[in-house]
Amino acid sequence: MAKINENYLKLQAGYLFPEIGRRVNEFQKANPGAEIIRMGIGDVTMPLVPSVINAFHEGVDEMSKPETFKGYGPEQGYEFLRNAIAENDYQSRGVDIGPEDIFVSDGSKCDTGNIQEIFSAESKIAITDPVYPVYADTTVMSGKTGNVASNGYFNGIIYLPCTEENHFVPDIPKERPDIIFLCYPNNPTGATATKQELKKWVDYALDNKSIILYDAAYEAYITEDHIPHSIYEIEGAQKVAIEFRSFSKKAGFTGTRCAFTVIPKEVMAFTHKGEPKPLHALWYRRHTTKFNGVSYPVQKAAAAIYTKQGKKEVQEVIDYYMENARIMCENLYEKGFKVFGGKNAPYVWTSPPKKIKSWDLFDKLLKEAHVVGTPGSGFGPSGEGYFRFSAFAPRKNVIEAMNRLKKLDL
Amino acid sequence: MAKINENYLKLQAGYLFPEIGRRVNEFQKANPGAEIIRMGIGDVTMPLVPSVINAFHEGVDEMSKPETFKGYGPEQGYEFLRNAIAENDYQSRGVDIGPEDIFVSDGSKCDTGNIQEIFSAESKIAITDPVYPVYADTTVMSGKTGNVASNGYFNGIIYLPCTEENHFVPDIPKERPDIIFLCYPNNPTGATATKQELKKWVDYALDNKSIILYDAAYEAYITEDHIPHSIYEIEGAQKVAIEFRSFSKKAGFTGTRCAFTVIPKEVMAFTHKGEPKPLHALWYRRHTTKFNGVSYPVQKAAAAIYTKQGKKEVQEVIDYYMENARIMCENLYEKGFKVFGGKNAPYVWTSPPKKIKSWDLFDKLLKEAHVVGTPGSGFGPSGEGYFRFSAFAPRKNVIEAMNRLKKLDL
Repeated sequence: MAKINENYLKLQAGYLFPEIGRRVNEFQKANPGAEIIRMGIGDVTMPLVPSVINAFHEGVDEMSKPETFKGYGPEQGYEFLRNAIAENDYQSRGVDIGPEDIFVSDGSKCDTGNIQEIFSAESKIAITDPVYPVYADTTVMSGKTGNVASNGYFNGIIYLPCTEENHFVPDIPKERPDIIFLCYPNNPTGATATKQELKKWVDYALDNKSIILYDAAYEAYITEDHIPHSIYEIEGAQKVAIEFRSFSKKAGFTGTRCAFTVIPKEVMAFTHKGEPKPLHALWYRRHTTKFNGVSYPVQKAAAAIYTKQGKKEVQEVIDYYMENARIMCENLYEKGFKVFGGKNAPYVWTSPPKKIKSWDLFDKLLKEAHVVGTPGSGFGPSGEGYFRFSAFAPRKNVIEAMNRLKKLDL
Repeated sequence: MAKINENYLKLQAGYLFPEIGRRVNEFQKANPGAEIIRMGIGDVTMPLVPSVINAFHEGVDEMSKPETFKGYGPEQGYEFLRNAIAENDYQSRGVDIGPEDIFVSDGSKCDTGNIQEIFSAESKIAITDPVYPVYADTTVMSGKTGNVASNGYFNGIIYLPCTEENHFVPDIPKERPDIIFLCYPNNPTGATATKQELKKWVDYALDNKSIILYDAAYEAYITEDHIPHSIYEIEGAQKVAIEFRSFSKKAGFTGTRCAFTVIPKEVMAFTHKGEPKPLHALWYRRHTTKFNGVSYPVQKAAAAIYTKQGKKEVQEVIDYYMENARIMCENLYEKGFKVFGGKNAPYVWTSPPKKIKSWDLFDKLLKEAHVVGTPGSGFGPSGEGYFRFSAFAPRKNVIEAMNRLKKLDL
């Protein structure tokens, strides 16, 4: 008799974003005339930049001729892309990461989920609260937790509360985790971590033989010079950290799909006998056995981001979104909201003047202002009472949404 | 202390195709003048057809304008593609599969590997021998086996020998499997299964509450009318089978990446208490949590295969490869090889007149004829002594390879 992976049954309701989609669709159906402004799911709205489009077309053209056609590519990604990443994202910042450390993939969501597979099923995982739901859900699915408790926490996960008090950068927990998910600039809080704050975690990982899974999907939105773009800017991180990066938010690739994961060869985890094993080799094995590389024209398009013109064009789009963030911060602050993030991240994390539950605020904004945000509690219990607004929207929508919000009793 | 998934350490040497790549590269380096003909890895050589290229370009153009730009798409795949698949691959053959049963993905390699995750870690898996290595390797990686035995078999896997005697369609084993991987037209043997032969397995699965994982990646190569294209042509299969299909071999998408998996809503597996649970819901949850859909221009390109002109163009390419297969079968037969497959599949499974180990034949062909094939033993112990030739090659290479082979002492 075929039996299911019962860990899936421990998961609660739908994944956050499908649930938002469901409520919005239901409302839209009942109110076909309502002009809904979507600032919920963190999805980009600006088209791919011209350099990327040109390279994408070139890649497609190469697929049309026998001389330039590409079949299976290297599972780890084409060298031209891995070289461009290593040079521009790391070496130019004085970080010693080479193309051989990089694995190109079709998304950080896939990678941050699938990476769990190379670790022991008994691993103790620490995640921040609030958190991008994928880390928690995939921890549950892979059997590393018990059931969910009444407070929304899963037994077996070590939660690291991120609150106004600790500036949304977690403290070292009492219980010792084997694996620690960190994400800076943070989704959903928009907070950043300084080098000093990250050093605390790198030193902890070195002392405890833990692994840091560092999600830097939003690094392109950093505007302040002293904020690190990569965990590898911290000494020692090359021994204990895996970094995830994505072109989704950096260059509008949410529907085009390209990302990468960095695993330096010195990063070790251990057998139950304490023998160190390089995680690079394990992930390489997974990548070659369960993945077949990213579409060639997509890799070609991604590489165009690193050309001189591509960089300029991508930066203009980022600046556009960050001006949206500035407008939102300003307006929400004036309305009496507490406002966090929005300075080095495309997310504004906020709580309204009057206390209200996150999903209640979601429904209120949807019904009364036709504005969609993301309820903070969807990211974890510590997000209750908060709300995330995404800067990924056309300017006129941001302004209109803020105008509508102003009129509400909040 | 972070611990690894030690199941990975049970795996043997490299995955077959990287190992072939390694030996070929080494030989090419030592013999830079040698004109190597590659008929090893089953990778297509003909470019994407014009209809696909046009649609691909259109998709890219849509990504360049705010009005038509696509961000995150539905994780299950765009409806236009799922509708085209359901209509053309299933409903047109009288098979009741709808778009809601279909999950578009970036590859069957990913899907046939990842699908294991929704089943209990204690599941008993049956695979054929020889077999596409991914089924076995991902079974090991997911902890469903013991160590490898000296005969190359993993303890805990139920092997179903496919031999000349049973025409490469396995017999029902003594031990009862929970999950059965079947692949027809078969990789590597090129064999097909009749409706009657598949019915035996569907009935077995119904009686035993087992699940059939049916890989139909090569169905487009079927030339004989009586051979089923889908497991769902067999009565009852909608209750016990998951089907994997790919555009890789059907339409030259190995470097473009698009595939799909079909899970009818009636397919059930069970909790340890015996409660039935639909696998569709579990895979949907995995798909939405650990995957973010296929690149929009790629889905647009894939849908073009189902247009009238697209079908014609794709069929011409398939016919070209199948003429290669015919030439190979003819020449190998004349040279005294035993020849199987090549009639409804792009693979010719063959053994030379004089007995020789598969990897020895690989090295001999590489060194003496500069021809690359795939050693049968790389697909499992029962493949020892056999060799797989792929019909995916330019015609002139096929003819040249056959001429070189004729001169060898085999």
